[in-house]
Amino acid sequence: MTSPLILSRRHLGLLGMPALLGGPAKAQAVAEDPLPSWKPGPSRQAILAFLADVTTPGAPGYVAPPERIAVFDNDGTLWCEIPTVQLMFALARVKALAPRHPAWATTQPFKAALEGDEAALAASGAEGISEFLLATHAGNTPEEFNAIVTEWLAQARHPRFRRPYTTTVYQPMLELLRLTQAHGFRNYIVSGGGVEFIRAWSEQVYGIPPEQVIGSTIRTEFRFPHGGKPELHRVPSLDFIDDGPGKPVAIGKFIGRRPIAAFGNSDGDLEMLQYVTSSPGRRFGLIVHHDDAAREVAYDRQSQFGKLDRALDQAAPNHWTVVSMKNEWNTVFPPLG
Amino acid sequence: MTSPLILSRRHLGLLGMPALLGGPAKAQAVAEDPLPSWKPGPSRQAILAFLADVTTPGAPGYVAPPERIAVFDNDGTLWCEIPTVQLMFALARVKALAPRHPAWATTQPFKAALEGDEAALAASGAEGISEFLLATHAGNTPEEFNAIVTEWLAQARHPRFRRPYTTTVYQPMLELLRLTQAHGFRNYIVSGGGVEFIRAWSEQVYGIPPEQVIGSTIRTEFRFPHGGKPELHRVPSLDFIDDGPGKPVAIGKFIGRRPIAAFGNSDGDLEMLQYVTSSPGRRFGLIVHHDDAAREVAYDRQSQFGKLDRALDQAAPNHWTVVSMKNEWNTVFPPLG
Repeated sequence: MTSPLILSRRHLGLLGMPALLGGPAKAQAVAEDPLPSWKPGPSRQAILAFLADVTTPGAPGYVAPPERIAVFDNDGTLWCEIPTVQLMFALARVKALAPRHPAWATTQPFKAALEGDEAALAASGAEGISEFLLATHAGNTPEEFNAIVTEWLAQARHPRFRRPYTTTVYQPMLELLRLTQAHGFRNYIVSGGGVEFIRAWSEQVYGIPPEQVIGSTIRTEFRFPHGGKPELHRVPSLDFIDDGPGKPVAIGKFIGRRPIAAFGNSDGDLEMLQYVTSSPGRRFGLIVHHDDAAREVAYDRQSQFGKLDRALDQAAPNHWTVVSMKNEWNTVFPPLG
Repeated sequence: MTSPLILSRRHLGLLGMPALLGGPAKAQAVAEDPLPSWKPGPSRQAILAFLADVTTPGAPGYVAPPERIAVFDNDGTLWCEIPTVQLMFALARVKALAPRHPAWATTQPFKAALEGDEAALAASGAEGISEFLLATHAGNTPEEFNAIVTEWLAQARHPRFRRPYTTTVYQPMLELLRLTQAHGFRNYIVSGGGVEFIRAWSEQVYGIPPEQVIGSTIRTEFRFPHGGKPELHRVPSLDFIDDGPGKPVAIGKFIGRRPIAAFGNSDGDLEMLQYVTSSPGRRFGLIVHHDDAAREVAYDRQSQFGKLDRALDQAAPNHWTVVSMKNEWNTVFPPLG
């Protein structure tokens, strides 16, 4: 079975994007058109103006390279969040684990998950869903979990777009990640998703190494059994939910300085956007607005898919850039190689 | 008042160490003698052999640059831990805060701290010391706390060596940090000390940026008061103690991959050394052994200063390098400019 990560690497190469993978074509690609998937318009203009301002020595907005840190939400900001990919993983994982847990066939929330009954799963409430997620994610070392995620991604396909989830990432955002990196930025993911789920593929798909991925965490324990080897073990206990006000808290803990640019798409990113864009100096906030029902999914406000409500209200007064996916993006997903 | 960070920067320059600060002399300095403060001997040889093995393409021990991660304990490994610098900070801080807390004059553990009665403070037990540390560290934003630490470091002096604590760092370890960095390593501090205490000066003193400092943490909250600004606030509640088995746990959480080299000096570093050096491939573990009573302090095993007992027993079977500070270091501290 071909690894999706290798597929992604190949795709990016075919797309003329070796720079994302650290190839020598970086300078040349940037010199041509750094954002080919972004149509001329206010968002593209705002991005380029910000990058010019913070990287031009002597400019009033200049920011020294060590302080050039950008934070990106993942679900709905860097890749498609409908359906939630990690939930699809958990639904597949519960089936793989079921033979070892015969009681699951008759016990909620596992029965619902095994039957693919999402309504019944949702009805189990936050506690039920949490139990389901912990049971499908814990009980392994980080290395084992990484291999499990990699193997699943290799064969899973997005139900509507019929392509690997590692290719339902947003092509314009891949270009943006590459461009900020070429301007001396260190890009961090700050996601409500599980940190080790994202770390399994973020370097190959986004060019973001594991140590620049911040996310929700379950507890791990150090174990060194007699005659065994020292390992970390992922236990079924929640450690931290990296969402809403948790995002600036995690940024403070992991990065230890305030980023100068933040990218999100929902109310779960509001506090991160506020925290990043309110400090003195040239700052940048951007919201990916899902308004493209034809090429992706249209949702905001009180939608069943996600909520962009308070953050959308706050965009104008805070001078955050709101990207219309429908009007400002030439393409949504990378073409398949 | 001159900032100690500026002092450090100047000292390093005077010592012919611009490379640590990212100057262009790096390659040249390394080409001369990369470790001038390390005497010829087993430790120096082991370090140089390891670096050659992991950076020589085609060599059996070769490690690609993204995986070249090294973790360093701080207290007793990178700087002198007798007395514990952060405890000295807390003792000074309790005096500065006392006018706002009149009850402290008659309440333990604060009375003991205010009177500098370390025996009485120790007698207050883990709970009392924790209360004392939280009260002297919390109640501010990370930016405010950083400024408080910086201001204190500018005037505090080591009681025996009569120099700023930012200069009671180990000159041989500064050279080692510079050398690993020149070999493509990303160096992380993994300390039992408070993460924001170390982040206030680690970049200037060690060339290690805030995002590469892992330590013990107190909780922070995101607050955005009406009419105010969004800030993190450090609250007097313990979040995580980064010591012993907590060190590999924190490495997994923050870095997300196993480092290939670990440097420590006490039993609190044992699990980190085990975790790092037990994975397949060329790995390196080093213990700084405090055996130099004349130039620093001699201690290990059951000493009053620190305990190096289980880790020392584990060194030989695990092929960890044990550095005799007395016999293998030409100098201990950087000369004052």
